[in-house]
Amino acid sequence: MLHLKAPTDARWFGQVDAHLDEILIDHAHCEKKAAGTALNLIFHYVEDRELCREMTEIVNEELEHFHMVLDLLERRGIKFRRLKPSQYGQKLHALIRKSEPERAVDRLLVAGLIEARSCERFQALAEHVQDAELAEFYRGLFESEARHHTTYTRLAKHFAAEDVVNRRLQEFYEAEATIIAAGEPLPRMHS
Amino acid sequence: MLHLKAPTDARWFGQVDAHLDEILIDHAHCEKKAAGTALNLIFHYVEDRELCREMTEIVNEELEHFHMVLDLLERRGIKFRRLKPSQYGQKLHALIRKSEPERAVDRLLVAGLIEARSCERFQALAEHVQDAELAEFYRGLFESEARHHTTYTRLAKHFAAEDVVNRRLQEFYEAEATIIAAGEPLPRMHS
Repeated sequence: MLHLKAPTDARWFGQVDAHLDEILIDHAHCEKKAAGTALNLIFHYVEDRELCREMTEIVNEELEHFHMVLDLLERRGIKFRRLKPSQYGQKLHALIRKSEPERAVDRLLVAGLIEARSCERFQALAEHVQDAELAEFYRGLFESEARHHTTYTRLAKHFAAEDVVNRRLQEFYEAEATIIAAGEPLPRMHS
Repeated sequence: MLHLKAPTDARWFGQVDAHLDEILIDHAHCEKKAAGTALNLIFHYVEDRELCREMTEIVNEELEHFHMVLDLLERRGIKFRRLKPSQYGQKLHALIRKSEPERAVDRLLVAGLIEARSCERFQALAEHVQDAELAEFYRGLFESEARHHTTYTRLAKHFAAEDVVNRRLQEFYEAEATIIAAGEPLPRMHS
């Protein structure tokens, strides 16, 4: 299912070990942003009924995850706060083409790609962290992110032929690998 | 619960009788917009945990209503499409003060006021329309809009003292009455 070209490396695990609290806070923000992305897609492609149905489910799930992370923070006495986001999403969004229907294809593929990377990182975290509750938590989120990735890629095919979408997806996989491999100094879910 | 100062009048029922399909399509858009408003409030006031919880519930409910209206349109063979929105929401939003915490108070009160008016119009429609399925449909939505109105007004009190909020709410009731009484030529949920 996941064809990410750059597996998460030791550099990021170093950030996780040194700044787990910050990674957790950023995770809550990411879930909230994922809900926002799905709702925005409803606003822009409101005439696509299947897209609206799928995006509604994703909004609900992401907001549920958002509250799950907030609960986890609360149980651990970590104060939730605003954080400067990583530039990962912004760098991917910069690649989205401006005119329709290419724009729809790209928005859906980028959203799906972020889900794929989150999925890969949750799996990596589940194996990496010593904390059993956290490992279980990440394992629980893995499945839905993988499903969201598949949904986004499938919906992109409402706006272009399958082979066109697949070729574009390959381009995005390459670009994403470069972005994630470069890394970022601030410890974030996608740094 | 509702202290709206201008009950829906014959002019609007005339628009409903002549353009029921368009009112139904606009209703779907209103539910979607209501979800967007609630999610935006999460983004802006993310550190207020109770607000985030309540807004999550509202996002989920409004999206559920959005799909209920889309289903109703489908059953009736009415094609869902984009519509020029009424200026009602825009006119109310223009009254929102720019600096915090007044802005938070106003955003919440305006959101609550729109729910109150929707609530009043659903009740009016339930009594007005001859169609039993539609009447039942509007009756079913009435309760949640009333609840949302109460939630928004309560949350506004996180950002200012109760008497300050109540005074501001009275000002909004006055302004809303003027806006709705003036009406709009395009047949809409809030025309």
